[in-house]
Amino acid sequence: MENTDKIAAVHRYVEAFASGDMNIIRDLYAEDATVEDPVGSDIHKGMEAIVKFYEPSLGKIKLNLSGDPRCAGDEVAFPFQVDASGMTIDVIDVFKFNADGKVCSMRAFWGPENMKS
Amino acid sequence: MENTDKIAAVHRYVEAFASGDMNIIRDLYAEDATVEDPVGSDIHKGMEAIVKFYEPSLGKIKLNLSGDPRCAGDEVAFPFQVDASGMTIDVIDVFKFNADGKVCSMRAFWGPENMKS
Repeated sequence: MENTDKIAAVHRYVEAFASGDMNIIRDLYAEDATVEDPVGSDIHKGMEAIVKFYEPSLGKIKLNLSGDPRCAGDEVAFPFQVDASGMTIDVIDVFKFNADGKVCSMRAFWGPENMKS
Repeated sequence: MENTDKIAAVHRYVEAFASGDMNIIRDLYAEDATVEDPVGSDIHKGMEAIVKFYEPSLGKIKLNLSGDPRCAGDEVAFPFQVDASGMTIDVIDVFKFNADGKVCSMRAFWGPENMKS
């Protein structure tokens, strides 16, 4: 998988939040993907659980990239700021891609220190 | 492990590069730690291999944090810029800590797109 495709996936993810388009999420993730957000919390596994996880936030919060995506191996890490009802959260997400170019693992790094009102 | 301790570890890591002090690296990592830099390349395992990996760069390149460290679970992800002989590289590192508060895994995310002269 080319780095340009990984970076394009990051931009589609940002667009999914901006437009509230769950089809982008469905297209981005592998059927058996895992989402751990934040890292250390219960893992959402499989498309149904993942869609359920995104439903409350998609189209309601906004993601703004705060630096260039970093591609390495089969993964990409990218820093962004979440803008949600007057509060901002600084986050770093890591996508891992499978051989089909679908995200098979998403891990979101953020903690209480990253939440600002 | 408290998030303040994880954030302090990140700042000690930056200081190790600024001062060229390998003792900081030795103190930061667990004896059986792994370093994958960049992600996807061969893994350096164990203190001896890790010290050997850092020897050419410690005290010679400079790390500047480009955002707040993100603590989650037993891990911390942090964005920074490497300043090395007129070239900059945007990197995101992820430290994972063991029960003793030592870094047991370091993974560095960066690719050719993140190198600028």
